Amino acid sequence: MKVLVINAGSSSLKYQLIDMTDESVLAKGNCERIGDEGSFIGYKTKDNNIKKEVDMLDHAEAFTQVKDMLLDPEVGVIKDLSEVSAVGHRVVQGGSIFHESCLVDDSVIRSIQKLGPLAPLHNPANAQGIISSEEVFGKDVPQVVVFDTAFHSTMPEKAYMYPIPYEYYEKYAIRRYGFHGTSHRFVSSEMAKRMGKDIKDLKIITCHIGNGSSITAIDGGKVIDTSMGLTPLDGFMMGTRSGSLDPSVVTFIQEKEGISAAEMDTILNKKSGLLGVSGISSDDRDVTAAEQDGNHRARLAHQILYYQIAKFIGSYYIALGGCDAIVFTAGLGENQPALRKAVCDYLKPIGVEMDYAANDACIHGNEGKLTTDSSKIRVELIATNEELVIARDTKNIVESLL
Amino acid sequence: MKVLVINAGSSSLKYQLIDMTDESVLAKGNCERIGDEGSFIGYKTKDNNIKKEVDMLDHAEAFTQVKDMLLDPEVGVIKDLSEVSAVGHRVVQGGSIFHESCLVDDSVIRSIQKLGPLAPLHNPANAQGIISSEEVFGKDVPQVVVFDTAFHSTMPEKAYMYPIPYEYYEKYAIRRYGFHGTSHRFVSSEMAKRMGKDIKDLKIITCHIGNGSSITAIDGGKVIDTSMGLTPLDGFMMGTRSGSLDPSVVTFIQEKEGISAAEMDTILNKKSGLLGVSGISSDDRDVTAAEQDGNHRARLAHQILYYQIAKFIGSYYIALGGCDAIVFTAGLGENQPALRKAVCDYLKPIGVEMDYAANDACIHGNEGKLTTDSSKIRVELIATNEELVIARDTKNIVESLL
Repeated sequence: MKVLVINAGSSSLKYQLIDMTDESVLAKGNCERIGDEGSFIGYKTKDNNIKKEVDMLDHAEAFTQVKDMLLDPEVGVIKDLSEVSAVGHRVVQGGSIFHESCLVDDSVIRSIQKLGPLAPLHNPANAQGIISSEEVFGKDVPQVVVFDTAFHSTMPEKAYMYPIPYEYYEKYAIRRYGFHGTSHRFVSSEMAKRMGKDIKDLKIITCHIGNGSSITAIDGGKVIDTSMGLTPLDGFMMGTRSGSLDPSVVTFIQEKEGISAAEMDTILNKKSGLLGVSGISSDDRDVTAAEQDGNHRARLAHQILYYQIAKFIGSYYIALGGCDAIVFTAGLGENQPALRKAVCDYLKPIGVEMDYAANDACIHGNEGKLTTDSSKIRVELIATNEELVIARDTKNIVESLL
Repeated sequence: MKVLVINAGSSSLKYQLIDMTDESVLAKGNCERIGDEGSFIGYKTKDNNIKKEVDMLDHAEAFTQVKDMLLDPEVGVIKDLSEVSAVGHRVVQGGSIFHESCLVDDSVIRSIQKLGPLAPLHNPANAQGIISSEEVFGKDVPQVVVFDTAFHSTMPEKAYMYPIPYEYYEKYAIRRYGFHGTSHRFVSSEMAKRMGKDIKDLKIITCHIGNGSSITAIDGGKVIDTSMGLTPLDGFMMGTRSGSLDPSVVTFIQEKEGISAAEMDTILNKKSGLLGVSGISSDDRDVTAAEQDGNHRARLAHQILYYQIAKFIGSYYIALGGCDAIVFTAGLGENQPALRKAVCDYLKPIGVEMDYAANDACIHGNEGKLTTDSSKIRVELIATNEELVIARDTKNIVESLL
């Protein structure tokens, strides 16, 4: 079975065609600047790496480009469209409606659209992706949706309710939802495998540290708390995001600068975090280079980040009533040994004993254990693979239909 | 030496006259509704408890009332005003200017006024209190100011900088300041005494849980982190305050409800927390009664509060690199054994072993140790006494002038 995995943004479309017999990626790429000038498709296989400028007025035209690439006599990886058994879509916001991945029908699409106000930058685009996919691949190809929020739906009320007037929960469904769910699910399940244990018997803290970052507390395979909230702005500092704040900081700046709520939201989403503190870049490699050159604010940005991550882990250690394992994953988690070292050094009081040589060796795709054998908590680097989770869910759901 | 301690609000004036020979309170009370109809003064001594309605147009008239009460032939506690050796004032916001208590001169008053934008509800009133006090008691009586923020001024940059654009720190001095400093200072120093140790050798977490609440991490007598921030809204849920939030929750509600930043700030300061979640009251006694009657939202409000306190302690355990002692203080901390029990139960993984009988006995003014002798961390209830700290600082500063 071959599954096409889709992550549709407002003007982009990322795709991967995965052969589920061995979970290998046959082709992957992205359509960018859809509906804009200079739109192009990137396409990568074992043997080819192509970037082609082509007009794409909407998501349907982008899907047609993807289809044409996959079927191309020279660079394609399939002979006939019927080889694509199913399409799996990433959807950001499943609200309180979707607690797991599911097969798409019209009511599912409507529900995803209805959740738009809770994820205005993502859900409408995700829904459009599904609709366009149906247009191009036909109604006979099953479509599955996998939600960023679903894995977090087991959180107890005390973790997901904000201490604000209850009416806002009733009127607008304002609560903590959490994101990166497929990533946290993948690495926690992988961690249990590596430990040779049933995940039901484990307390795991997963740290997805990338341009966007979140930390999740998982007890027996079920999320009990996560750092992102109503939106992916909640939690701790990220590449360009502030994480949670004294709400008076938000209103204070609005009043002083005379800016609207929407403008403030943009500043806290796009101009804060590593970028805001360092004044240099949201890319950790630039901040690291500046820190090495002795830049004080670059160093400060890292210090805040490491400190906030360590404090979140400390709070989840208490929330879980202990911890067996901690996982680092995603861009920074996978490629920044300095971050992992700083965080693990903070964690000595709860029994984390880092193997510094192992940590230094875990970079550029190397995974593995970062702690000594005598460490009370096992810490590992596990590369995340959200597309694979989407493909697996899609396969499982489609097979259950047979 | 007798010291008059003053806490001036915008329409109120709390006072205590303390005899520093034995630190006993000779008289205390409050002027309320200053500048408004129905203003009155409360006055309490060992033998009297008086409430007198009297017109007070401004703080100077309130001070005159206080003076007259203290000197009253029947209920007064001094014969001559010269018995008041000094006046100590609580000031909320000392910004980055004041790192300790100090003697008042004109430049100090101007600095307190200049910090007004950072504490608009408090600093202007605090400054007015000092000026009125000088008018009534004369320039010869030394005045001392004690800042809520000063004890927190030892925080490192990684703890006090918010991960937002750095320019807001430069332009508006937006950073974490922390509040309740005199309380955290008092109970941490008292804790060291009770343990028979030098505070320099101790890592202490102090939990001031009242209508406003904050938790502070103190390493060797110096604050390294605290939950309140730019304003007393930061941290975790309180009687009517939300604590820190996903900033998008703030902007989302503003947009949906069409309300201003100032209106939003009021909602998060006055209508959130225990009141907002329970829908019943900001008074924990009412919420407790409702919970006992089976009210779900009252129970939820408590669950969120206990959970958030426990998570903060977990994060500070990591920030401190361990912990020797935890202190509960203030209204709820002193009088709500259920809160202390729930929090300490969460803290088992870091070695807190509660003595439940001792905890139940600590109520209505009873202080003491709440943990067993084998508990790795010693937890105590210590009644706070901010007025005494102000009086002691005032005495020390005045004596150093001699």
